[in-house]
Amino acid sequence: MVPHLITALTGPINELEQRILDSMPAIERWFRLEWMEHTPPFYTSVDIRNAGFKLAPVDTNLYPGGWANLTPEMLPLAVQSAMAAIEKICPEAKNLLVIPENTTQDPSYLANLAQLKRIFHMAGLNVRIGSIDPEVKTTKSVTLPDGDSVLIEPIVRTPRRLGLKNFDPCTILLNNDLSTGVPGILEDIHEQYLLPPLHAGWSTRRKSNHFHSYEEISKRFGKLLGIDPWLITPMFNKCGAVNFGQGTGMDCLATNVETLLGKIRRKYKEYGIGEKPFVVVKADNGTSGLAITTVRDTKELEALTSGQGSKLMSAVKGGQGQASVRDIIIQEGVLTNERIEDAPAEPVVYMMDRYVVGGFYRVHAQRRSDENLNSPGAGYVPLAFDTSTRLPQPGAKPGASAPNRFYMYGVIGRLAMLAASYELEATDPDAEVYD
Amino acid sequence: MVPHLITALTGPINELEQRILDSMPAIERWFRLEWMEHTPPFYTSVDIRNAGFKLAPVDTNLYPGGWANLTPEMLPLAVQSAMAAIEKICPEAKNLLVIPENTTQDPSYLANLAQLKRIFHMAGLNVRIGSIDPEVKTTKSVTLPDGDSVLIEPIVRTPRRLGLKNFDPCTILLNNDLSTGVPGILEDIHEQYLLPPLHAGWSTRRKSNHFHSYEEISKRFGKLLGIDPWLITPMFNKCGAVNFGQGTGMDCLATNVETLLGKIRRKYKEYGIGEKPFVVVKADNGTSGLAITTVRDTKELEALTSGQGSKLMSAVKGGQGQASVRDIIIQEGVLTNERIEDAPAEPVVYMMDRYVVGGFYRVHAQRRSDENLNSPGAGYVPLAFDTSTRLPQPGAKPGASAPNRFYMYGVIGRLAMLAASYELEATDPDAEVYD
Repeated sequence: MVPHLITALTGPINELEQRILDSMPAIERWFRLEWMEHTPPFYTSVDIRNAGFKLAPVDTNLYPGGWANLTPEMLPLAVQSAMAAIEKICPEAKNLLVIPENTTQDPSYLANLAQLKRIFHMAGLNVRIGSIDPEVKTTKSVTLPDGDSVLIEPIVRTPRRLGLKNFDPCTILLNNDLSTGVPGILEDIHEQYLLPPLHAGWSTRRKSNHFHSYEEISKRFGKLLGIDPWLITPMFNKCGAVNFGQGTGMDCLATNVETLLGKIRRKYKEYGIGEKPFVVVKADNGTSGLAITTVRDTKELEALTSGQGSKLMSAVKGGQGQASVRDIIIQEGVLTNERIEDAPAEPVVYMMDRYVVGGFYRVHAQRRSDENLNSPGAGYVPLAFDTSTRLPQPGAKPGASAPNRFYMYGVIGRLAMLAASYELEATDPDAEVYD
Repeated sequence: MVPHLITALTGPINELEQRILDSMPAIERWFRLEWMEHTPPFYTSVDIRNAGFKLAPVDTNLYPGGWANLTPEMLPLAVQSAMAAIEKICPEAKNLLVIPENTTQDPSYLANLAQLKRIFHMAGLNVRIGSIDPEVKTTKSVTLPDGDSVLIEPIVRTPRRLGLKNFDPCTILLNNDLSTGVPGILEDIHEQYLLPPLHAGWSTRRKSNHFHSYEEISKRFGKLLGIDPWLITPMFNKCGAVNFGQGTGMDCLATNVETLLGKIRRKYKEYGIGEKPFVVVKADNGTSGLAITTVRDTKELEALTSGQGSKLMSAVKGGQGQASVRDIIIQEGVLTNERIEDAPAEPVVYMMDRYVVGGFYRVHAQRRSDENLNSPGAGYVPLAFDTSTRLPQPGAKPGASAPNRFYMYGVIGRLAMLAASYELEATDPDAEVYD
């Protein structure tokens, strides 16, 4: 069953979709050449928002969960991509160790682990799951609602290698975004492939680095297609060392929000867009600890900082003081104008190696179209990203064909993945620099 | 809609299926390592027959037609595999030239060309179709029953390159099996990639070479799985220079048929199989010119050679004499015990690069289960090779799960593809030989 999807697609997006479709061979060749020079992240998911007048990635996850939301129809593509990925990294591999998040109680996260295990098993690996959580001291089997069960074992560290009891992997797959820093147990592993590398974790990653890379890439891609790169790029600013508790760094925030709102206003004017500009304020690193907040006016910002109980404040984990000093990214807000049964929906594109393997819609009935949908209460609809409709249909009317829209999303997803590749190259501590 | 499928699966096949399923990671790793040393053919289709007590490839096609029989659900896998194939060969490629069979009147063959064009277009190439048929002097557009149209253009040969008017391809994809020999227009092309290479055509290929490679591979694979390789291998003999018109070489044929029937009889006895052994007599090269004939007794052979009007004779194209002198392969006959609405059916597995992308059943209501089904009147059912069921289901009862059976077919298909890879290495005129 495919849910009803209402999409307000007007103006520039239809032209963009048509350009992307017409340029398919050129686009695919462009990616092919990029991947000759740059290594794709092992796996990636990208949140995309389609405002109808523009379309942009808003978040790129290098340790994607949610694999269980992919439909069975998408699995063969994931398996084939996993085969391609493993073959390049460690073709002789027999064993793959998956390191999950430490909080593995959530049934949907456990289902994600079961799905990852299924994919890599079918790609030809013995897969076991080893936790780096110090609390996990013995092997435990967890049964999922669908009857599937997942075995989580305590990790065994030897001076040079990481593994499980009687299990020595060639490749270690992190499904843990290292938000709380790189644990010592993962350091100094030189004999095994640790993927993604440690510097892909949030202790090193900065969203501003990512979107800076994306900006550069979208400029070149825009030139290839002959389009204004703004149509596919969220503008952004950043502020260092903002402390919402003590109110320091708030001037920088106010100035940057004002500047960015002005830039968006000018763009809206240029395209005759009647919407109200907004920005999104979020931590430059990490996925938690600070709420993702929509700001439509600097006045809202003042209100936020003026006292206790503010939305931002309440979301700061670990209390006041030092812990709440954060680097902040201020990103152009992109409306999501796709609807499933009146609820705002945003597509999430899943990739393995260089390939788009599927995706789903994140739907949140309690949120508005200018708010973050990735929060408790969100639902997932695998909607029409299934393989039978994933392939574009040349000749269909722009805006009217779901496969064509999904092809476009796959292109934007891959642009964000490429940006992550550039970003990881730039932050690689072992990179060889040629002058 | 999935057609009704009756399969008489008894005895050793169930055990084989279970072994293959249990050994999935080991099998996938084995292939991975093989593909590090050997190059897969660009694309391959393999006819498989499942007798219930054994299972074997009977024909490996290196210029597969019939791509149009794949379902839309299988296309994304084909596109992804095409991307992987092109990327290795000519990543900077913009253009792909497809050279079809010279007889392109058949609507189903034209649909095959349209499908190939679709796949490679989506993989990121400008695809055009150029005929080497000297009769094709101007561009013609042919409309297919489904409304799709195919443009066939005359090929343009320059001293060093092959192309079309205003179209210079990096890669040339042959979909012409060169049964009638290698035309001069395809020779001495050193600046472009011609795929598959000319020595994959039937002027060089010999089925006996292929099955000799397959035999070697299945021995090693049998060792990996701990099974008798006969369970997945058709035994064979061969005779050179048989002339059915003049009756020369018939002694060799009779002796070899007798020997092979004896070997099959012993194997049947070993496994307690009650079926009547038979062999299949066919040309060692080519796909046409000699009927594929089932022989259950050498007496049938004598009858065949004794006069005019014999089955074999009538099938010899190009009349008597020199033209009908052929190398002959005598292959162990493998019953097909799969049925679709009472008609014998055999699976055909399609591969691109190293990946299984799908398949279908060839069904022929007018044929018996010990006869060749690849003949006029055959139908095609894409039956359950679709992606949703292609992935194996560990834990299902052997013989009862279609996905598990299809995984097994995919493994056998890949073994035959690997045999073709060995075969092409051994017959490569440009191979560098190390002592």
